[in-house]
Amino acid sequence: MAVREDADQLVRSTDSQHPANLICELCRKFYTLGWVTGTGGGTSIRHNDHIFIAPSGVQKELMQPTDMFVMDYNNRQYLRKPTTLKPSACTPLFLAAFDRGAGCCIHTHSQWAVLVTLLVERDFGTKACFEIERIEQIKGIPKGRGKAGNLGYHDSLRIPIIENTAHEEDLTESLEKAMEAHPDTYAVLVRRHGIYVWGDSVQKAKTQCESLDYIFQLAVEMKRLGLP
Amino acid sequence: MAVREDADQLVRSTDSQHPANLICELCRKFYTLGWVTGTGGGTSIRHNDHIFIAPSGVQKELMQPTDMFVMDYNNRQYLRKPTTLKPSACTPLFLAAFDRGAGCCIHTHSQWAVLVTLLVERDFGTKACFEIERIEQIKGIPKGRGKAGNLGYHDSLRIPIIENTAHEEDLTESLEKAMEAHPDTYAVLVRRHGIYVWGDSVQKAKTQCESLDYIFQLAVEMKRLGLP
Amino acid sequence: MAVREDADQLVRSTDSQHPANLICELCRKFYTLGWVTGTGGGTSIRHNDHIFIAPSGVQKELMQPTDMFVMDYNNRQYLRKPTTLKPSACTPLFLAAFDRGAGCCIHTHSQWAVLVTLLVERDFGTKACFEIERIEQIKGIPKGRGKAGNLGYHDSLRIPIIENTAHEEDLTESLEKAMEAHPDTYAVLVRRHGIYVWGDSVQKAKTQCESLDYIFQLAVEMKRLGLP
Amino acid sequence: MAVREDADQLVRSTDSQHPANLICELCRKFYTLGWVTGTGGGTSIRHNDHIFIAPSGVQKELMQPTDMFVMDYNNRQYLRKPTTLKPSACTPLFLAAFDRGAGCCIHTHSQWAVLVTLLVERDFGTKACFEIERIEQIKGIPKGRGKAGNLGYHDSLRIPIIENTAHEEDLTESLEKAMEAHPDTYAVLVRRHGIYVWGDSVQKAKTQCESLDYIFQLAVEMKRLGLP
Repeated sequence: MAVREDADQLVRSTDSQHPANLICELCRKFYTLGWVTGTGGGTSIRHNDHIFIAPSGVQKELMQPTDMFVMDYNNRQYLRKPTTLKPSACTPLFLAAFDRGAGCCIHTHSQWAVLVTLLVERDFGTKACFEIERIEQIKGIPKGRGKAGNLGYHDSLRIPIIENTAHEEDLTESLEKAMEAHPDTYAVLVRRHGIYVWGDSVQKAKTQCESLDYIFQLAVEMKRLGLP
Repeated sequence: MAVREDADQLVRSTDSQHPANLICELCRKFYTLGWVTGTGGGTSIRHNDHIFIAPSGVQKELMQPTDMFVMDYNNRQYLRKPTTLKPSACTPLFLAAFDRGAGCCIHTHSQWAVLVTLLVERDFGTKACFEIERIEQIKGIPKGRGKAGNLGYHDSLRIPIIENTAHEEDLTESLEKAMEAHPDTYAVLVRRHGIYVWGDSVQKAKTQCESLDYIFQLAVEMKRLGLP
Repeated sequence: MAVREDADQLVRSTDSQHPANLICELCRKFYTLGWVTGTGGGTSIRHNDHIFIAPSGVQKELMQPTDMFVMDYNNRQYLRKPTTLKPSACTPLFLAAFDRGAGCCIHTHSQWAVLVTLLVERDFGTKACFEIERIEQIKGIPKGRGKAGNLGYHDSLRIPIIENTAHEEDLTESLEKAMEAHPDTYAVLVRRHGIYVWGDSVQKAKTQCESLDYIFQLAVEMKRLGLP
Repeated sequence: MAVREDADQLVRSTDSQHPANLICELCRKFYTLGWVTGTGGGTSIRHNDHIFIAPSGVQKELMQPTDMFVMDYNNRQYLRKPTTLKPSACTPLFLAAFDRGAGCCIHTHSQWAVLVTLLVERDFGTKACFEIERIEQIKGIPKGRGKAGNLGYHDSLRIPIIENTAHEEDLTESLEKAMEAHPDTYAVLVRRHGIYVWGDSVQKAKTQCESLDYIFQLAVEMKRLGLP
């Protein structure tokens, strides 16, 4: 199948809710939150059979809709491939989330996420999940795929942690294993690296990512203050 | 009484001081302050007999005036109810503040507020208030309803803390009890959750909320540095 | 002398460098820096014989040029007094700075300033100044009134600290004493309150205020990390 | 050679990618990141044989293209010299980076950079480099001049630290020595002062500067939490 390198109609739209526009808007927001410092992190949206993916190695706050890669979800072929840009190494990880029903997947290098992976390792070893309960913001996270509603205040939030690898794409297998071992999770932490968060929709992925980051920051601050 | 779902004239105005516009502007500001991360927090304004309330479960920084719920203060019936949105679970708590004369009530998930509730519990037990004195910013908080002027530098600022519950609306009873036990307070902290702050006007609620957050942050930083 | 309450020509100008416009722009910036939280802090500019002063008790990030008070420097009478606003309690302190040649004076409630006053008190007692040396940013502070150039890297920066009082205007006497005892200083810290910083021009007052805040933050972070 | 003081055509362009426009945009961004507080820091771009340099002693977030100095790279003479501004004392340091192939050089007073120089000194002495490994963001830094690709997750990132001097220009010799001793580095830390970061292009210098700052912040936070 020929890749249409000039398939601009896939990413040009005056609708602010078009995936190519949304990814740019999200990444500008994530930049100010310190989640995509340098050229780190990435974002992908599935819209019907089209996967929109931010390119690798670019300044995320300056991205334009025409920088987007577009892939056919069914055959995993690129429908649009900007010639001067590199596709994201996160692509197989985003696809793993879409295969489990996600509509959007966000990858950040949030320092709070990195710090909790280090704190959990030190205190509970490399096999442990991040686990927290009795914090109101937990209610921002859904119970799990196919389950109605969000976690309650007395529920325990568990986020699996996988070990980092030399190459981003090599995380795919352990990410998928973590997804299978924790079928209710909407996020996987990567030690010394960051986090992958996904959701049924763009709004859900984004707000869940924010809620988790809030919880990680609070957990780090509690540790610092010697709070249990 | 029939709910007018299309009662758009209640929320459409070119006046930036219209409650529906003010709530959107405040929430954008609160988002950048980290107070309404995810879809957390909420804001409500009473204008004569109309209560304007931000909906539940939305991205607070993207809210539009047409997302607002409007309630009749006297009979507690909705005058406007956007069909695709859920009313805020904070509504009975906002009403409790309006019943005590407030013109605006703000609910945030500020991490500084959450951290002080944890520090107070650890150091003084679950019955204790947050209490601080001799910090200039205390002068940003009024003495109490019906009392002229603000607290002085040598006054003690006391904010009651209530325990969190599984459902937001179940906080109403303990919030009302705290309001009765502390008739001069303009705020109630909720353990592991956040804070409710109200004021005579929108400006007062907002600036009191800022002053309190400043004080909570300072109190946490002082603890960290081992300052008394 | 009659106060011209409608003396709008004193504050209306399309020139972005007009004092009434500059105060508004500065205060918006200071708000995002957390220096004028709530309605705290204040700013004043002397332009020839006119003193422009931000009002008391307003949201500093929303101020408009028409909110400004204007005073005649020579006879200390108001030339413009917005009827619905209160003059700033900082006015006599600003005047003390203008009497020593300042062109602009800034008062903030910066938490870093408050924290260093507490750290100095704990470690060196209530008589001690804040003192630091061998930090590059010290070079952002001038040597003193009538002296050419800025402090060098090997110079010691000393900022006097005065005790807070119940009423802002009662700080005037001790501020003036600190100015006399430290004739080279361009700033006075107020314990548990904040700081007054002035400079020959608006640009100098603003950049010196930023440099000092940077230095205070660094000093607090060094303390936290156990650095000398 | 005569300096053309009015050589405005060198800095006036409607192209947002023109060096004079880029420096202004970068400095506004750096201001919000706290890297160029007061009038600290600086930025320079080499474009063919022209060196564009931000002036000394100005508010970096307010700079205009017409504030730029322009130097001929070959003979080191100014082609444009704004009469009311002072050339940057960082100029010889920027030139040292350009002599090693850089297209852009950024100097910041980042507090995280300053803090790591102090932590390294305390823990390993004045001869030690900053060194870190196994943090994903290391992959944002190239392997070295003339080497293909970026550092890997298992590589060690080393940034030399030089001692501060009384005058910025006196850093040139030790900066050049550090560049020779560490031919692969794209940055040199200056104790108690900040950092110089350069890159092949504007984008690379900026994103490498962000990645390093992220890494320094993480290193400080890890120290605070007692993490190794």
